[in-house]
Amino acid sequence: MKKIKSKIKLLLKMRAVIITLTVMVVLLFLSAFVKDLWQWEPRNEVWGKRWPLEYKSFLETKDTTFKSLHNGSAKTDMLEKDPNMVILWAGYAFSKEYCQPRGHFYAVDDVRNTLRTGAPKNETEGPQHGSCWVCKSPDVPRVMNENGIDNFYTKKWSALGADIVNPIGCSDCHEPVTMNLRITRHTLIEAYQRQGKDITKATKDEMRSLVCAQCHVEYYFKGDNKRVTFPWDKGMTVEDIEKYYDENNFTDYTHALSKTPIIKAQHPDYELFTTSIHFERGVTCADCHMPGTMAEGKSITDHRIQSPLNKIENTCGVCHAGHEAKEYVNNVTDRQNKIQEIKIKLEELLVKAHIEAKVAWEAGATKEEMDPAIKLIRKSQWRWDFAAAGNGNSFHAPLETARIISNGIEMGQEARLLISKILCAHGIIKVEYPDISTKEKAQKYIGLDIPKLVADKNIFKNTIIPEWDKKAKERERKYDSEKY
Amino acid sequence: MKKIKSKIKLLLKMRAVIITLTVMVVLLFLSAFVKDLWQWEPRNEVWGKRWPLEYKSFLETKDTTFKSLHNGSAKTDMLEKDPNMVILWAGYAFSKEYCQPRGHFYAVDDVRNTLRTGAPKNETEGPQHGSCWVCKSPDVPRVMNENGIDNFYTKKWSALGADIVNPIGCSDCHEPVTMNLRITRHTLIEAYQRQGKDITKATKDEMRSLVCAQCHVEYYFKGDNKRVTFPWDKGMTVEDIEKYYDENNFTDYTHALSKTPIIKAQHPDYELFTTSIHFERGVTCADCHMPGTMAEGKSITDHRIQSPLNKIENTCGVCHAGHEAKEYVNNVTDRQNKIQEIKIKLEELLVKAHIEAKVAWEAGATKEEMDPAIKLIRKSQWRWDFAAAGNGNSFHAPLETARIISNGIEMGQEARLLISKILCAHGIIKVEYPDISTKEKAQKYIGLDIPKLVADKNIFKNTIIPEWDKKAKERERKYDSEKY
Repeated sequence: MKKIKSKIKLLLKMRAVIITLTVMVVLLFLSAFVKDLWQWEPRNEVWGKRWPLEYKSFLETKDTTFKSLHNGSAKTDMLEKDPNMVILWAGYAFSKEYCQPRGHFYAVDDVRNTLRTGAPKNETEGPQHGSCWVCKSPDVPRVMNENGIDNFYTKKWSALGADIVNPIGCSDCHEPVTMNLRITRHTLIEAYQRQGKDITKATKDEMRSLVCAQCHVEYYFKGDNKRVTFPWDKGMTVEDIEKYYDENNFTDYTHALSKTPIIKAQHPDYELFTTSIHFERGVTCADCHMPGTMAEGKSITDHRIQSPLNKIENTCGVCHAGHEAKEYVNNVTDRQNKIQEIKIKLEELLVKAHIEAKVAWEAGATKEEMDPAIKLIRKSQWRWDFAAAGNGNSFHAPLETARIISNGIEMGQEARLLISKILCAHGIIKVEYPDISTKEKAQKYIGLDIPKLVADKNIFKNTIIPEWDKKAKERERKYDSEKY
Repeated sequence: MKKIKSKIKLLLKMRAVIITLTVMVVLLFLSAFVKDLWQWEPRNEVWGKRWPLEYKSFLETKDTTFKSLHNGSAKTDMLEKDPNMVILWAGYAFSKEYCQPRGHFYAVDDVRNTLRTGAPKNETEGPQHGSCWVCKSPDVPRVMNENGIDNFYTKKWSALGADIVNPIGCSDCHEPVTMNLRITRHTLIEAYQRQGKDITKATKDEMRSLVCAQCHVEYYFKGDNKRVTFPWDKGMTVEDIEKYYDENNFTDYTHALSKTPIIKAQHPDYELFTTSIHFERGVTCADCHMPGTMAEGKSITDHRIQSPLNKIENTCGVCHAGHEAKEYVNNVTDRQNKIQEIKIKLEELLVKAHIEAKVAWEAGATKEEMDPAIKLIRKSQWRWDFAAAGNGNSFHAPLETARIISNGIEMGQEARLLISKILCAHGIIKVEYPDISTKEKAQKYIGLDIPKLVADKNIFKNTIIPEWDKKAKERERKYDSEKY
């Protein structure tokens, strides 16, 4: 009797073990299967079924009436606000249209609609390359995963329009099964590799900034294929990156007035943030731009990515308690005002430098004569753009931003001094400056035919975009929308 | 029996009241008497008898081997370290000698020994006025109290040498009976009055900065009597003070090379500190430069006024806990390095501006031609000096300092641009710059005969100073040294 009982006990124990093992094997299989299947689900609304509160907060980036301190998703025409930029970007698409970036919800809409991407009539037409999509959508890692990264970069921007339709969202930063943060862009992974670092070793805290650093960085389109590349091999300061570009003879465009080979800065947010005291003390992008918040009685991370000043008690107030909200606002705007003051000075003198250089070329100045001045304009404008293009630089790293602008001012003025001597040698003492007091006047001065560009764009919007959307819908209909 | 007992009780009560009142009256008389008698005791060693621990810590400012981060009391020749300054101050006494300020203990020694105060042979000889003593000694309020403020300013610096012998110390900031902080300089009291403010209403915390602001500020010598005056009537920013000086047609000196009417900044420490986040959050000078410390088992305020980085746990660490000392040091030096980088750029371009202006004058440029450029040099150098002369500006208010320097760079370069055009009009394309790589070379270039100045100074040191000391000793012998 005893023996039988102990055998039964043993069998029962074994059965428990077997059942547990079987369940584990089935779960592992299932998770691997699901992981593989849904790794690149690009539709935010599908993720939203499982994570409704986060999705709802993401959808709030849609609100165009939302006038946050960084302007929310209301549309602001920056060239209208500051026509100097039209001159600084003469010869480059940014002189055609540049609006303040809006919430992630509009990433695809805005890149489709801007004059910068032109009005391609078919898949082989430019002006832009596939590279221009890289930061706009979770469809990008999906397509790169399906067809390969190299293949992606052989295509024109227009050839990928039907493939890339979902705006920046869940899949860009999250692993779908565990919801862990992940890096989906080859650009950041490769930049780390070239520095001998392994991004998979990043801590959870580091990831709370690195997912943003997939896009909120300085990058360029490298080589014939225009592969998006981070120029960090020599470091991340304005000088390190400049050295990298100089040694690689890289130029974004040749300035239409001064003939300067210009480096156009993108938005080196992460680079400047890493020079800040907040970064040094371990603060991450998400801590301030996606603070913890309560939604329907649950604690979530706020996916309405926005100015920390909109939620001071959950952002600044977490570490710097004991002050009224308006005090923090004043502290930030005080920094912004100081930077704005000197940034505008740099802008204005650069505008003059470009125009003076144009006059010098027209007066017969030689390349040899102009070269030192042109080099200085390149350096100065790089510094202006690096400081100006980064979102929030004047709060993230005010002193570093001021240092950069100061150097830019010194160099830009030195360029003007050299040009003044060249002008003198060619018998010109006085330069007449055009009226560029409005966007329209400035664009006319640099020879842009905006009505023509707008008319072409409207044709593109009315014919090509509906085609893209139709194709995308057909493709997405085949996805299993009930996976979660 | 009962009646007698109650009468005795009443008498006892009355006696207690009478005794208390008598003691109070005597104490009040005594305190008024002592207050009046010792209000202006200038000898720190006498105060030291009553406050030996504080006095001992004050005496530590004497230590010349002390290499703190702001160099303690070791002597550093700033002109040797940075000969640009010789050129910037051409035509002004600072070009003769400028050492980094040392501890309070050396205030009288250093003003006696510097070449800036020259070698007066008698009481009517210059070059300096009584004003030059105002911040050097507690003998100053004593003398002003005895003879009147106006009378003080009628005298030459040399006429007050025997009167002013005790270095900055106890009586400058403390009321002798209560040891409360007090303002002893008419300059700050008057600056407040002109702004409609009453300094006697300052809180205890405000006083912990205001006692320092008696001297660590921008000031100038106003009118024929050279009365020390704070130029704060329009505000305390670099622009406010410039406006004040411009409207009062004030000039410290005419530059020997460029003929620019220069405003020499003193050390606008307090002004810049008031623009800082530390000031805004209620931190005072004493909190960081005179932290609480333990001495012989007692808690005292450290009177070895020094860099807060020498005592991080008692300074930064009080509010910003949880970091290693080297981290704070790095945070500070990082700010200093950034400011130093752009400050030097401003300096170098200003040196060129002065030399280029000199060449333009020599080429026959007219006042009318030169005026716009000269005005810009004045503005630019004012900004350089305001940023450079303040002790610790690059930590106190790094962004405001950078803003000031940036504007200085823009203006200085603009001046050079204007001069370049004038030079062109006068047929000059290239300017030769002198070798000013050492203090000696720079001083020779601006025409200073330093050996002669040193020889004269040595005669002064060997003859006049011993006389001053002898007279001072005789006078002080009459003081009651046992008052405490």
